[in-house]
Amino acid sequence: MTQISQTPTLQDVAAAAGVSTATVSRCLNFPDQVAERTRTKVMHAVKALSYSPNFGARAMAARRTNTIGAIIPTMENAVFARGLEAFQAELLEHGFTMLVASTSYRPDIEEQQIRALVARGADALLLIGHERSPEVYQFLEAQRIPTLITWAFDGQSIRPSIGFDNRKAMRLMALKVIELGHSNLAFISAETNQNDRAKARHWGIEDAMATSGLNPRDLHVLETTYGIEQGATAFEQVMKAAPQTTAVICGNDVLGVGALRRAREMGVKVPQDVSITGFDDIELAEIAYPALTTVHVPHREMGRRAGEALAKLVTDGTLIEATELEAHLVLRETLAPARS
Amino acid sequence: MTQISQTPTLQDVAAAAGVSTATVSRCLNFPDQVAERTRTKVMHAVKALSYSPNFGARAMAARRTNTIGAIIPTMENAVFARGLEAFQAELLEHGFTMLVASTSYRPDIEEQQIRALVARGADALLLIGHERSPEVYQFLEAQRIPTLITWAFDGQSIRPSIGFDNRKAMRLMALKVIELGHSNLAFISAETNQNDRAKARHWGIEDAMATSGLNPRDLHVLETTYGIEQGATAFEQVMKAAPQTTAVICGNDVLGVGALRRAREMGVKVPQDVSITGFDDIELAEIAYPALTTVHVPHREMGRRAGEALAKLVTDGTLIEATELEAHLVLRETLAPARS
Repeated sequence: MTQISQTPTLQDVAAAAGVSTATVSRCLNFPDQVAERTRTKVMHAVKALSYSPNFGARAMAARRTNTIGAIIPTMENAVFARGLEAFQAELLEHGFTMLVASTSYRPDIEEQQIRALVARGADALLLIGHERSPEVYQFLEAQRIPTLITWAFDGQSIRPSIGFDNRKAMRLMALKVIELGHSNLAFISAETNQNDRAKARHWGIEDAMATSGLNPRDLHVLETTYGIEQGATAFEQVMKAAPQTTAVICGNDVLGVGALRRAREMGVKVPQDVSITGFDDIELAEIAYPALTTVHVPHREMGRRAGEALAKLVTDGTLIEATELEAHLVLRETLAPARS
Repeated sequence: MTQISQTPTLQDVAAAAGVSTATVSRCLNFPDQVAERTRTKVMHAVKALSYSPNFGARAMAARRTNTIGAIIPTMENAVFARGLEAFQAELLEHGFTMLVASTSYRPDIEEQQIRALVARGADALLLIGHERSPEVYQFLEAQRIPTLITWAFDGQSIRPSIGFDNRKAMRLMALKVIELGHSNLAFISAETNQNDRAKARHWGIEDAMATSGLNPRDLHVLETTYGIEQGATAFEQVMKAAPQTTAVICGNDVLGVGALRRAREMGVKVPQDVSITGFDDIELAEIAYPALTTVHVPHREMGRRAGEALAKLVTDGTLIEATELEAHLVLRETLAPARS
């Protein structure tokens, strides 16, 4: 076996970059604590060598349990359900069983569950989004647990992700809204703390506003916890605080159907008086009345590809290729031209 | 410690019933293969001694992993989500982590996942419904894994359950429908194979018809797989095969909102032309338009109590008391008096 065909190690990266392994590790886990120049050098070496911190001896060790863990923020409203069902179906084809844990959107619970799944011998983990404490990533690396990020795509990250670009997808929706003549926009956002998808969706709206000559600072933003009732309350608050609003963009469908319901209760006609949009395209969006215009997330494709990638990685060490899938708009009944 | 305070064993039951331990085991796992008289004798001893096959040495062994597994038929449409979130919240209070597996309503996958969770060291399991192959129960007993059944209640079973009576709950709904003058009834049922909840709901309608002087054999029944689209297709088939139908009772909300949508597409007015009812009271029922009249399942209370019971069982050996919770009707907008 030649050196070339071997899996690159942390040592190889350190040697190529001319730094210590500790520095490489710090670059991967605490990039903020490393000087820009050092980081660039290290990341260059990482790319050149196709080094993946998620690919460890474990994958080759054949001490496999054939169990792969998936940790999601919530089971409510089936936001992640279709993706996970596809993930599981694909894993089954490769002889793996999926175990799921749910964090209630709490980072401390996520950490506890990552440790529980690793302790229970999970061969690999599927996690939602990139944002979590460096200690968690250090733990996963130390334990040599291959980890795949989904529901978010970041081509720049050292950690492989199979997902979609939340910022680009929401930008698309906001551009459509603005194209229909809306300039008084409000955004009901999920909590952005430790949620890179929520943050990215906010940025996407700002991008679209800037591109279209609107001032992003004019966006009326209201952040709320997850739930239909919360979406309803937020809609009422938005319409009181900014009655000139003609389009309420919601960070997810759950908030969207809540907003829709409260609009009906308040006698606000959707979309004649106010347009409302969602994000995710879960069943609720389709069943709501009027049916919610939203961003379709490629749930099943994402789950299937994630399952295939992790199964192959664990089975024969095939490195995961970061894969960006496309989200697209689903124009239903809740978005119309702005009232003049 | 006196004999009285000790946990009764399989041997104690055998001695009290005057049969072999093999016979007791057969009674618990293959009741159909045991003569009625023997079974009565054994079950009498089981009750007299408060014997629970789920309470094993494991619970006392302190070789705990603080992980409890929950195996559900599906993650789609969040049918089990609210119950599980409450289950998890309660477990967390007691220092346990929950791992979930989903079976896609397939008994073979459920068995595989039970084995995976046991192999991964789960301290106890939460299962949905009583119906599964005797081999699975034998395995759980041999492995001494405490198991709690939920989503169904059976006070007669040797296995503890914390749930509601599906038959009684659906009987309640059917009685309401009949009270409103409906006599041409159809039932869109989930698949009843290996699903005791689906079977019980069917019986509940038949009970109500018999009580009300209708012939249960006149019930037009259509069984279908799980999904909104399947509910839609089934509704169309029902209305073609039995156009005189004035009320379509659905076995769950997912089928119900599908039926509702197809009714709108077909120009059938709900509830003026045809009434439609669901079962579960998940978010979809509330968000649907018109809002779906349904049976409210005590999701959160069931989850909370199940979590508390399993945590206590594993922690200090407190036996689980079979607990029946009440389901009740939620009258929304899709049930009205029969058209005359």
